[in-house]
Amino acid sequence: MPRLTAIYRIRSDAAGIEARARGLAVEQSVEMPVEAIDDATVLAEIVGRVDDVRALGQGVFEVRIGLAVATTGAEPGQLLNMLFGNSSIQDDVVLHDVELPADLARGFGGPNHGLAGLRRRCGADGRAMTCSALKPQGLSAGDLALLARRMAEGGIDFVKDDHGLADQGYSPFAERVRAVTGALAEVARATGRRTCYVPSLSGDLDAMRRQVALAREFGVDAVLIQPMVAGVANFHALVRASPDMAFMAHPAMAGAARIAPPLLLGRLFRMLGADATVFPNFGGRFGYSPETCRALAEAARMAYHGLGPSVPVPAGGMTTERVAGMLDFYGRDVMLLVGGALLSARERLAEHAAAFVRQVAGHGYGQIA
Amino acid sequence: MPRLTAIYRIRSDAAGIEARARGLAVEQSVEMPVEAIDDATVLAEIVGRVDDVRALGQGVFEVRIGLAVATTGAEPGQLLNMLFGNSSIQDDVVLHDVELPADLARGFGGPNHGLAGLRRRCGADGRAMTCSALKPQGLSAGDLALLARRMAEGGIDFVKDDHGLADQGYSPFAERVRAVTGALAEVARATGRRTCYVPSLSGDLDAMRRQVALAREFGVDAVLIQPMVAGVANFHALVRASPDMAFMAHPAMAGAARIAPPLLLGRLFRMLGADATVFPNFGGRFGYSPETCRALAEAARMAYHGLGPSVPVPAGGMTTERVAGMLDFYGRDVMLLVGGALLSARERLAEHAAAFVRQVAGHGYGQIA
Repeated sequence: MPRLTAIYRIRSDAAGIEARARGLAVEQSVEMPVEAIDDATVLAEIVGRVDDVRALGQGVFEVRIGLAVATTGAEPGQLLNMLFGNSSIQDDVVLHDVELPADLARGFGGPNHGLAGLRRRCGADGRAMTCSALKPQGLSAGDLALLARRMAEGGIDFVKDDHGLADQGYSPFAERVRAVTGALAEVARATGRRTCYVPSLSGDLDAMRRQVALAREFGVDAVLIQPMVAGVANFHALVRASPDMAFMAHPAMAGAARIAPPLLLGRLFRMLGADATVFPNFGGRFGYSPETCRALAEAARMAYHGLGPSVPVPAGGMTTERVAGMLDFYGRDVMLLVGGALLSARERLAEHAAAFVRQVAGHGYGQIA
Repeated sequence: MPRLTAIYRIRSDAAGIEARARGLAVEQSVEMPVEAIDDATVLAEIVGRVDDVRALGQGVFEVRIGLAVATTGAEPGQLLNMLFGNSSIQDDVVLHDVELPADLARGFGGPNHGLAGLRRRCGADGRAMTCSALKPQGLSAGDLALLARRMAEGGIDFVKDDHGLADQGYSPFAERVRAVTGALAEVARATGRRTCYVPSLSGDLDAMRRQVALAREFGVDAVLIQPMVAGVANFHALVRASPDMAFMAHPAMAGAARIAPPLLLGRLFRMLGADATVFPNFGGRFGYSPETCRALAEAARMAYHGLGPSVPVPAGGMTTERVAGMLDFYGRDVMLLVGGALLSARERLAEHAAAFVRQVAGHGYGQIA
């Protein structure tokens, strides 16, 4: 029976780790006393198997557990459930990585557009892409559209909603999409350059479907979604049902999951169809290390069971001063998201956006760190 | 403008806490440099407000932040997003509690059946309810039905699916519901006592809807759901669209969220419609303390903006030896879930289930701890 390998990191002492690893294997599979199981197939195939235990030092052990693919099937929520559902409640363990059979991973489909598709959308051949965010929430659709217009005049490739923008009374989704797409179309007519609007989806699957359909009517071909709030199965269902839409994944509620960011935001979101994945860059408002960010970007882009690459989008308090360093660190296959720092330019927003765009376009690229 | 109060606990030194609290208030509201905001209404109403900072000792501070209800609306996912979306990525902070305006909380509706409704379903007047779980996954629908039959013969009130049971090939949802309900109906005819089957939902909203509809055809009137895997908005949509169904919430993926369990599993799941909420009891396989469990049970049952009480379901490695203590600890308004320990009785399952049921029925109840 085909198996996947879940890789956990557990805090434990050497004396207790073997038993703890076995306990984890049971918790994430049959979740009952093994000695009470008669069924030979269940004992042989379904009960989680501890394949390896390795000391990493400082009282941390890496444990590899084999789980039957039959227990997850190709259902994203059930995959998450089998990988970390109950163990998420045990705070001595982190889900570090997972190795999936190629056909299982490929079955999820991955990004419909990914790196190449997003580049095509904005003609960013051979260079990094630029992105900014519409905020603060509380502004009217018209005011947000004005910001979008300035960003577009500056030549930004993608203008996304702040993930806090939902369907609030002060800026309903439909009104916002109409206003922002209208403003961007005018700029495009004047400059001949297209800026893509990426509105943020919210609500249950039905509501998100309606939002996708409405956005489509206004020519929108990319949306922002929060997979850990929407539910990974709903995220995946939307992606598969919307082959024309590019999906940018936002890490809201993902950070707390004690699942290694490169796995969750990089590999899993990509596997489920994220064309781009937003994550907090090191040195910003969040605690990720350069190593974590590099691993995340690699998980999003590296060859993986034939699935298309997803675009890493480092963000979270980035400024134009950091652009050169980020491009040297991440290389060309990246989308740089600078939000608040551009908005701080206020009436000179278009100008600062243009400077940001020039910086990215003209970057020489040092040797990639 | 009406506000809700998000209560966080932050690790910090005294010198840094004021700035950290302000940063958190901005992160969870406008998420941009406040000095770059011109709009007077946004500054006055939308920007998060630090209402109080209190030292709790050991380098932990409690911070109360006021957020405009207009930013969340009555949308469960957006509420979660505004309460903890980005902060979830900052590991110095825990979402400890939230105070909502009565009309916002009431608007979510809460449990359709709750404590009284579940008691009615199984005629458990004035006593605690009993529950057991069908596992291990890997068994066929027929074998699971056999276990359900024995549990019903023992007089268990609720027989739930292990949350690992989804729609796997070895026991498809439809086949399982048919087999288990058939077995329980036979026992009911023989004993005149009804045991309620609680099958586990999985997949995206459409799949869960189909499962609810199918279960309904077989007379099922209670289902198990994992709100943090399904997405809270989808959970809520299902509850509101299925007034005949009782919903038992499972904590899968919830434990890792760094949201205080009494808030997430107790208050929020209840507010969104959980009729019963399963959580790991102290002294089992998980790390919750008695204080956390008591607070969780109270959050599920206490008067809260006129919403019906939800039933606390302590679980996670419980044994019949612990029944008396749990009843003294939680009182009558509880459902006791004993799974693996009963299954360990194998062919004497019905007998052990009956003993469990007698224990609960005959318990004297000491003074509630």
